[in-house]
Amino acid sequence: MTSQTSSGSRRRVGADLHLDLAVTAGRGVRVALTDALRDAVRSGRLPAGTALPSSRGLAADLGLARTTVVDAYAELTAEGWLTARQGAPTRVAATVPVPHPAPRPADGRDGPGVVHDLRPGRPDASMFPRAAWWQAVRRAVAAAPDAAWDYGDPAGRPELRTALATYLARVRGVRAGPEQVVVTAGATEGLRLLAGVLTDRAGAGLAVEELGLHAHRRMLDAIGPPTVPLALDDAGARTAELPDLTAATGTRAVLLTPAHQFPTGIPLRPARRTAAVAWAREADGIVVEDDYDGEFRYDRRPVGAVQGLAPERAAYLGTASKALAPGLRLGWLVLPVDLARAVAARMAGGVGVVDQLALADLLDSGGYDRQVRTARRHYRLRREELVALVAGRGPGLRVVGHPAGLHALIELPDGTEAGVLDAARQRGVALEGLGAFRHPRAAAGRDGIVVGFATPSASAWSGALTALGDLLAAVG
Amino acid sequence: MTSQTSSGSRRRVGADLHLDLAVTAGRGVRVALTDALRDAVRSGRLPAGTALPSSRGLAADLGLARTTVVDAYAELTAEGWLTARQGAPTRVAATVPVPHPAPRPADGRDGPGVVHDLRPGRPDASMFPRAAWWQAVRRAVAAAPDAAWDYGDPAGRPELRTALATYLARVRGVRAGPEQVVVTAGATEGLRLLAGVLTDRAGAGLAVEELGLHAHRRMLDAIGPPTVPLALDDAGARTAELPDLTAATGTRAVLLTPAHQFPTGIPLRPARRTAAVAWAREADGIVVEDDYDGEFRYDRRPVGAVQGLAPERAAYLGTASKALAPGLRLGWLVLPVDLARAVAARMAGGVGVVDQLALADLLDSGGYDRQVRTARRHYRLRREELVALVAGRGPGLRVVGHPAGLHALIELPDGTEAGVLDAARQRGVALEGLGAFRHPRAAAGRDGIVVGFATPSASAWSGALTALGDLLAAVG
Repeated sequence: MTSQTSSGSRRRVGADLHLDLAVTAGRGVRVALTDALRDAVRSGRLPAGTALPSSRGLAADLGLARTTVVDAYAELTAEGWLTARQGAPTRVAATVPVPHPAPRPADGRDGPGVVHDLRPGRPDASMFPRAAWWQAVRRAVAAAPDAAWDYGDPAGRPELRTALATYLARVRGVRAGPEQVVVTAGATEGLRLLAGVLTDRAGAGLAVEELGLHAHRRMLDAIGPPTVPLALDDAGARTAELPDLTAATGTRAVLLTPAHQFPTGIPLRPARRTAAVAWAREADGIVVEDDYDGEFRYDRRPVGAVQGLAPERAAYLGTASKALAPGLRLGWLVLPVDLARAVAARMAGGVGVVDQLALADLLDSGGYDRQVRTARRHYRLRREELVALVAGRGPGLRVVGHPAGLHALIELPDGTEAGVLDAARQRGVALEGLGAFRHPRAAAGRDGIVVGFATPSASAWSGALTALGDLLAAVG
Repeated sequence: MTSQTSSGSRRRVGADLHLDLAVTAGRGVRVALTDALRDAVRSGRLPAGTALPSSRGLAADLGLARTTVVDAYAELTAEGWLTARQGAPTRVAATVPVPHPAPRPADGRDGPGVVHDLRPGRPDASMFPRAAWWQAVRRAVAAAPDAAWDYGDPAGRPELRTALATYLARVRGVRAGPEQVVVTAGATEGLRLLAGVLTDRAGAGLAVEELGLHAHRRMLDAIGPPTVPLALDDAGARTAELPDLTAATGTRAVLLTPAHQFPTGIPLRPARRTAAVAWAREADGIVVEDDYDGEFRYDRRPVGAVQGLAPERAAYLGTASKALAPGLRLGWLVLPVDLARAVAARMAGGVGVVDQLALADLLDSGGYDRQVRTARRHYRLRREELVALVAGRGPGLRVVGHPAGLHALIELPDGTEAGVLDAARQRGVALEGLGAFRHPRAAAGRDGIVVGFATPSASAWSGALTALGDLLAAVG
């Protein structure tokens, strides 16, 4: 198969804007222009309120048909990135959309559609414990006081906040009372609310690991000052560099994934945990701990949360998306009390009381533990099969990181990532390149793909594994 | 009982800020200062980023103890209105908290606590159909495709969007396809998302009825340019004045409650509906229709939604909070397609899939209709008892508005509102004064109280009614 290489062309727009239009055979110039403008807004290169050139002017500058520019502007206006008014220039919107936490399946524009879904960040949907959930709902609905149906504390139901404090203390070493727990509509929503408070207080962007969840980074960049990359190495985030980062940028909050770095899979070493906490105490800062898959360690008992080392200097993010389902939209924050109050004051929607009470029931009754154990066995076997698939394929190919989590990073020989991704698209294999997770201000790094081995259903798994093996055969 | 009158004092802070400190015997100066500062931020008089005077300076200006100012700043910082940094002035936060849609019960500071809860905006929590809900959950959880557990379309599950489009067409005359429906975590969250898009597009504040839900107004004032009051009279909102309002302020969106004006209870007359739609077409504007209790009309079939007159010029807000429960956090928007896409792009948290599928089941199966009919009978009887209580008590006392909804406005003799509210607080009767709902830029109006007659449970209702009668006896 011939790989479709992109012909990037750098063009000047107005006085100071460059757009990289990556046009390929399967992806027209309209899509490329739309993506380039969207990225420019997302990254902050086009700040809120910026007037864009007229469609006629931009088309002339870029040598494109005017309708192409008109279409791109209309698409971005519909998505909320731009605002258009009759008789006035199109502008960058004052508040930009919150990116969805997970990428969508490739659509027809990008290839033949998804046949094998290996996107990271998702559990096997067929594992959702339907019967256990509705039984928990039945018990919770029967037992709820009438007051539960009213508007409640925006921080969440007391039953769930208590159940989470108890569960997280036992399983993750989190030290907190119920008053420090805030229930959110998923971890991303929790991070959004928290980041609003933190950027107001600090006036500087958050530091983030130089490889990390793109959706979170883009959301943070849209909320406040731009994020600052913190270097990683084979022992995790280089937290000893935080004081220098603070001196250079003023940042006083760092987003870490200590249990299982996303996406490299490396746990943060104890000395580096201690360094992060020491920095937070010294800088009057805070460690934001995204414990997105902390329950899923396969070789031994997971290291406890950083939060347990310094509850007054940590903001802990958790989610039911991995053990239960993203569709439930259930996450939680554990915060110092003043932050918990400030975050709760910003809650607008909140989380439905039935889901909250059902989750509290599952946590208290041991049903949640059972589900985690079942899922852990299921995913451990899959990871072992993935490791076996990669083993011995060549010196440039290896599975990075500890046996944990629902995804794995497979390092590729230098220069092969784009080709593997192109081939994956053509064959309908949905996965993500490591480059997509790299901070735009980070140095270049190794090639790799991030494989969500938990995503396929039980019946789809072996086919997905075979398809992945075929992709790797071309580079191994 | 002696009414505690407030001693308002207008004081200069810095160069240009006035604070009205309403200090009463039961309410210290710290609370008054905190409230005044909070209101100044909410109303936009203290814009984001404004540096406040030092606690020492403000205390000297106001003749207060410094600890009083320190406490007020600390409280507002914890709530997220202000931001404090070591060595820098306290400032107004860049993004301010979203007010909770409904007031909280009075706490100890305001009186002896709530004995009779007649706050508007709530259904009788004991009416929640527990068995019907968990049976709907059981059916929905059993029937859901595996894909439902994954991250889904941020606009909501297709089953619910289709069920809502069908239901709203039948019951409220809404004309829309499922692609125009966006499921939100309550109506307030829907309005928040919509207002973000609208203020980006229009660059001007929304027009709102001069009497309306304070929580919505404050939220809108925090999101974008200040809201603009639209006058009301005995036939509802004076929509013929919208063109002048647009000429004067640039506003291109108006928030109306056409079915049952909140809180006056007057339905918007047909000619005024037509005027609103004509204005929207002429001004390239939009009518935001808050149909918060549209199913609860007791004398005859309710007039259909304004949305049905001009689907391309209307944004319809609905909620399950009245027929089911606020605790479910379930609301919906019906929008022109481009707005629906823009709003969905801003969704961060979203609504849990189980609640969405259960509500779709109830709508499709007729269970929702049954619940509305049951609740309607229940609340109609209560409203009749309330009308009987007020009838014949004196010329200055009357229940305003049509027989509909879950609350009623009782007009009081001029100058008696504050006294009735004080007496209510002392006796533990939670209700709201009409003045709380008046736009700060609206002209003064009649005295009144807004009574949520649906709020008490079945067993608490007769006691609450008696307590209300005692309050009215003092002024009737």
